Amino acid sequence: MAALQPGSVVAVIGSGAMGSGIAQVAAAAGHTVKLYDTRAEAITVALAGIGTIYSKLADKGKMTHAEAEAARARLHAVTSLADVADAKLVIEAIVEDLDVKRGLFAELEGIVAQDAILATNTSSISITAIGAKLRRPERLVGMHFFNPVPLMALVEVISGLATDAQVANTVYDTAASWGKNPVHAKSTPGFIVNRVARPFYAEGWRLLQEQAADAATIDAVLREAGGFRMGPFELMDLIGHDVNFSVTRSVFDAYYGDPRFTPSVLQQEMVNAGFLGRKSGRGCYRYGDGAEAPAVQAEAPLPRPDYVGHSLEAGADGRQTAAMLERFHAHGIDVRHRTSAEGHQHGEAPAFHCHGAAIYLTDGRTATARAHANRHDDTVVFDLVGDAANATRIAIAAADQCSPAACNAAVALFQAAGFTVTRLDDVPGLAVMRTVAMLANEAADAVHQGVCSAAAADIAMQKGVNYPRGPLAWADAVGVGHIVTVLDNLAAAYGEDRYRVSPLLRRRQAAGNNIHA
Amino acid sequence: MAALQPGSVVAVIGSGAMGSGIAQVAAAAGHTVKLYDTRAEAITVALAGIGTIYSKLADKGKMTHAEAEAARARLHAVTSLADVADAKLVIEAIVEDLDVKRGLFAELEGIVAQDAILATNTSSISITAIGAKLRRPERLVGMHFFNPVPLMALVEVISGLATDAQVANTVYDTAASWGKNPVHAKSTPGFIVNRVARPFYAEGWRLLQEQAADAATIDAVLREAGGFRMGPFELMDLIGHDVNFSVTRSVFDAYYGDPRFTPSVLQQEMVNAGFLGRKSGRGCYRYGDGAEAPAVQAEAPLPRPDYVGHSLEAGADGRQTAAMLERFHAHGIDVRHRTSAEGHQHGEAPAFHCHGAAIYLTDGRTATARAHANRHDDTVVFDLVGDAANATRIAIAAADQCSPAACNAAVALFQAAGFTVTRLDDVPGLAVMRTVAMLANEAADAVHQGVCSAAAADIAMQKGVNYPRGPLAWADAVGVGHIVTVLDNLAAAYGEDRYRVSPLLRRRQAAGNNIHA
Amino acid sequence: MAALQPGSVVAVIGSGAMGSGIAQVAAAAGHTVKLYDTRAEAITVALAGIGTIYSKLADKGKMTHAEAEAARARLHAVTSLADVADAKLVIEAIVEDLDVKRGLFAELEGIVAQDAILATNTSSISITAIGAKLRRPERLVGMHFFNPVPLMALVEVISGLATDAQVANTVYDTAASWGKNPVHAKSTPGFIVNRVARPFYAEGWRLLQEQAADAATIDAVLREAGGFRMGPFELMDLIGHDVNFSVTRSVFDAYYGDPRFTPSVLQQEMVNAGFLGRKSGRGCYRYGDGAEAPAVQAEAPLPRPDYVGHSLEAGADGRQTAAMLERFHAHGIDVRHRTSAEGHQHGEAPAFHCHGAAIYLTDGRTATARAHANRHDDTVVFDLVGDAANATRIAIAAADQCSPAACNAAVALFQAAGFTVTRLDDVPGLAVMRTVAMLANEAADAVHQGVCSAAAADIAMQKGVNYPRGPLAWADAVGVGHIVTVLDNLAAAYGEDRYRVSPLLRRRQAAGNNIHA
Repeated sequence: MAALQPGSVVAVIGSGAMGSGIAQVAAAAGHTVKLYDTRAEAITVALAGIGTIYSKLADKGKMTHAEAEAARARLHAVTSLADVADAKLVIEAIVEDLDVKRGLFAELEGIVAQDAILATNTSSISITAIGAKLRRPERLVGMHFFNPVPLMALVEVISGLATDAQVANTVYDTAASWGKNPVHAKSTPGFIVNRVARPFYAEGWRLLQEQAADAATIDAVLREAGGFRMGPFELMDLIGHDVNFSVTRSVFDAYYGDPRFTPSVLQQEMVNAGFLGRKSGRGCYRYGDGAEAPAVQAEAPLPRPDYVGHSLEAGADGRQTAAMLERFHAHGIDVRHRTSAEGHQHGEAPAFHCHGAAIYLTDGRTATARAHANRHDDTVVFDLVGDAANATRIAIAAADQCSPAACNAAVALFQAAGFTVTRLDDVPGLAVMRTVAMLANEAADAVHQGVCSAAAADIAMQKGVNYPRGPLAWADAVGVGHIVTVLDNLAAAYGEDRYRVSPLLRRRQAAGNNIHA
Repeated sequence: MAALQPGSVVAVIGSGAMGSGIAQVAAAAGHTVKLYDTRAEAITVALAGIGTIYSKLADKGKMTHAEAEAARARLHAVTSLADVADAKLVIEAIVEDLDVKRGLFAELEGIVAQDAILATNTSSISITAIGAKLRRPERLVGMHFFNPVPLMALVEVISGLATDAQVANTVYDTAASWGKNPVHAKSTPGFIVNRVARPFYAEGWRLLQEQAADAATIDAVLREAGGFRMGPFELMDLIGHDVNFSVTRSVFDAYYGDPRFTPSVLQQEMVNAGFLGRKSGRGCYRYGDGAEAPAVQAEAPLPRPDYVGHSLEAGADGRQTAAMLERFHAHGIDVRHRTSAEGHQHGEAPAFHCHGAAIYLTDGRTATARAHANRHDDTVVFDLVGDAANATRIAIAAADQCSPAACNAAVALFQAAGFTVTRLDDVPGLAVMRTVAMLANEAADAVHQGVCSAAAADIAMQKGVNYPRGPLAWADAVGVGHIVTVLDNLAAAYGEDRYRVSPLLRRRQAAGNNIHA
Repeated sequence: MAALQPGSVVAVIGSGAMGSGIAQVAAAAGHTVKLYDTRAEAITVALAGIGTIYSKLADKGKMTHAEAEAARARLHAVTSLADVADAKLVIEAIVEDLDVKRGLFAELEGIVAQDAILATNTSSISITAIGAKLRRPERLVGMHFFNPVPLMALVEVISGLATDAQVANTVYDTAASWGKNPVHAKSTPGFIVNRVARPFYAEGWRLLQEQAADAATIDAVLREAGGFRMGPFELMDLIGHDVNFSVTRSVFDAYYGDPRFTPSVLQQEMVNAGFLGRKSGRGCYRYGDGAEAPAVQAEAPLPRPDYVGHSLEAGADGRQTAAMLERFHAHGIDVRHRTSAEGHQHGEAPAFHCHGAAIYLTDGRTATARAHANRHDDTVVFDLVGDAANATRIAIAAADQCSPAACNAAVALFQAAGFTVTRLDDVPGLAVMRTVAMLANEAADAVHQGVCSAAAADIAMQKGVNYPRGPLAWADAVGVGHIVTVLDNLAAAYGEDRYRVSPLLRRRQAAGNNIHA
């Protein structure tokens, strides 16, 4: 265990929301914390705030009052940088400006001891660039906390080209000793979270632009079918569209216009309009007095179908189909297994068939394309659900050729299984499936390019942005082969490099392996 | 009908070519028009100019002299913005600068009535952005006229994110009452015309860069085979390469580097050279005294072939083949129908065969690739013609493997049918077909992304840039399936996202539907 | 022969490394040379340097002492531009700044005779743009020398849009008369060398990013297997990463973000870190006292295999396989020919099989993908070697499914044939093959777009950057069909436009022709 000794001095430079949160956590963990800011009054406010939080935590029984008092006593305001000379670790949390950060670290290098570690909480600047002008760049490391720091467990420990592995390990172990969930990553644009999360927003914008549904409906599908805590639009309204667009733009530029990260013109228009989200009173939703909750599309209740057929020979989507089958059984639906599909002479066997409708888990094709390929008009596809046993909503789409009766049969089937059924326009890969596939794809590329391990990618997304599952574990659960098929079909449907499959996914599929060994 | 009352006051801000044209049209339609400019003498000049035009129109019998006089009397110079207080509609036609426009509208908002409509004639700035700082952004709308305003029927009525639908409808109906052909569109880069027209220029540059032919020959093919009023190079020489390049660049940037809109390095070189077109005396052509009309490639006349074979089982290009067949009959060519292709054991049946040559409508592949795939060296492809009965020119290309005799047989066949035959180098999709396919593709994407309706896209291109047909109606006429095949083959030939098929085209094809219902 | 007369006056503007080298060459070739610089002392230093070099050349017997003295006597310092009035050719070699160059040429146009040629040694600015403001732009031409000028034979003669063909021919012939190897090219970003060479660096970065091997190992493979004088990383360390990145960035931007030229984030990080190469003491390698040569991966020696099987029906890679077979024979390996592959019931026949291992020349797929496609786990692929008879190293990769024993069999086989065997991670197209394929692809696109002839492209890369073969001749040697297959498989593996096949390669393949007629 290489963590810093609990009693050792940690300096935090910058007393804003991030710096203040870091100071709170470090002092609670037993460190003597020196909080510096160029504005003395800001430190006073920050320390008072931390004190109040400690008291509340003690009131709630999260720590004893004695612990709260002791933690408070370990916090010190310093108004001269020279006062951090005895720090073992200095964590910078000031303005996101390369030159300002470089200037600060240059000054710190003249103050702290030879073996002190210099850490930056930057979310967007290359650690390598920040360290380049130091006499000893090997001791600079990224220590990227998430907001609010005391509540979010993730710390991305970022190594620049020159960072010493031991320095990164010490910071990793120290963060762990503070109760955080650290992960290692290389200095690359967006690090892990701000890169891998991009498709969550981007696919939302695409679905909206292609008129798959309105924002409230897409949000409901991601939340109630996908299991995400918030849908992309409500989440962006919370983050602020200006902030989110700026991250998107920055990652896009830093990857030299990689189409994976192309911003949406709709997103740009939100910023153009000043519809920035909660903070401006309007974003994808309206806020404030009199703002009504928008309606979410759901199919009207239909009578229970007589039975559902299940094709024993159905395909690569076996695991999801089996889970859905279990839910059908649990809801008392009469399932009849057969070896050849009802009314389905050509093409692939559907997962389910019900009153003439061939019903498939989406494989990234539209229902219309699949109906055409299988020469079966009455085709309906259903979206991935995060938790097949308990999800309350499911999204479906019917082929343009599909009869209303066949579509209703599919609706009735899923309603009988306890789902609220949302019908989307017939877009490739629907909503949850394409989002999860693209998240997994981006995580896989980060691993493929040596940015982080598969385990780190999954932890980062669960602990940094509360995803219900790590994207790579989720891909393993769905089946790497099916995820590759979905992405290949998305790529064929759109003809865009954006949906290219990560070489790592393709390799695991060809070798017959999962992502996680 | 929600159009403004004829007698109501319309204010026009800016007395340049666009503002002056708008004022002329509005006054002729019965409105009291207040023309404002910061330079009083410019208004005087503009009003005098409009008066002269009215007189000429009266002289030509387009309006009575009394009407001309009345219209002239309805035009008023105003030199203070405060004087437009009674306007029901204010149309801004000043410099293309976001901040300047925002400043103007902020001032106007303090002057005009609550229910007055504010319209901007911008061609390139987001309506949403222009309106963002207004107290009531819902009343700002784009009203994009085309130059020269009195002659060009199109008005793009552009809604920003905040624009009230009723405001857009009033402006739409008002434009219609002025004798214009309005279309609705959402605020997106290039709106409809400046976006959908991009491939007309872009494919021209690609053909030139790949040495399919020289500029004069490509222009002649688009004009005399395609039915366009001007070819891309003569049109750009008229528009000015600096202006055209700037629009290209602006749309490319606004779509974040979408390869559909990538400028040509040749186009950049024209601007680098200062070869700006007619206005600089040199563009793709030379102008001025002593400038010679460049030669257009055409095959020398060959003797009429004995007969042409026609394969009854020929493919997806059925409609174009049938139209060509009719022309062959009309020109007394001996057509012999057969069920198996002459000298063509492998691969697809050609549309026509003549003295050993297999002759196909282009499907986006080169003749060389098609010869290879069909294992038939003597392969010739012909380009789309806009009007199969009356077009005077047709473009063809022969495979690299094709014998001169077989190529000549194809030349002779089309000459016998009354065409001047231009032989292009063997580029994928030739000239008219790839241009039309890409125009339809871009129009389809605009529809797919909710920018406008299919009908609006077609009207816009016919009325805004004089295309002989709307691109989507043209695609329906050629066959959506064949257009998709052409684009898929272009994408395969070039391997570029640029030629990706719009999801809307693919969906219509899979469902067996036309674009226009 | 249109070369300038030997005795005629050549003026060189700028006495830096390039200008000085040009002056040295021109004077040695018999011209009266006037060397101008705004800093008189710089000219003095330059002339002294040239004199010293002449003396050394005379000492070495490369020229006589009388010739050295005569050449020295033909060199003149001029400190007023007016003094170059009698020059037949003025070669500009000053700072890379469009406006500065334009200003210089404008001034020169008022000084020199009507028929004097103006040449610029720019490496990165459009010749068309430099000439645009001249009264007679037709006499401006690019004359791009390579550093060090006296040693590097290549001169790119660049025509802008307005350049007179006769002017370009005169400069071409003059360069030839100086003992240089000139090539014609059109003014386009990167001209020939700085464009076609991009993949040499770019593929290196990709291999490093995807962890195919470390830099030293990749360098060794390119050098000892590929036959390049230096590997990409050692070469970039020599050039300087700041310089190389700047060229990459400039070509990328000038081609509007064409993914072929996308810079690497690793490359950006090297610049961020200040790891600029030899000149900064650290780049991909460390330099200076105590810097150790990094280890190059090589497999430990294994016992000679009993025999190797050779499939008579093996595929499109026939020429490389035959050359390898010859080497096996030369090293006394027992080769047994058979018509069906040992242990290989499904899919394609391998080039070689040895103790159960199916061994293929890479076709751009990973070994893992190929094993999966052929349903044969024990699959190993080997990389292209530049000279099958004499190369000292070969790179291989084994499928993830491959047993250690089978991989060892392949290692043992190539070791028995005298190769040091480097095992790369299983990346598509390995190292030499993908580099050569991408170099040929870029050269083909330059030819396809009319920038230069195939012969010029090959000469440029051999004489400008010392490649062992011209990329297009190399493609012909490997087989255009196999190069197309490699690129198609790379494109499929990565799903990126970056690996799209040049239409010229595809056309030659379909027609059954080589690139060089």
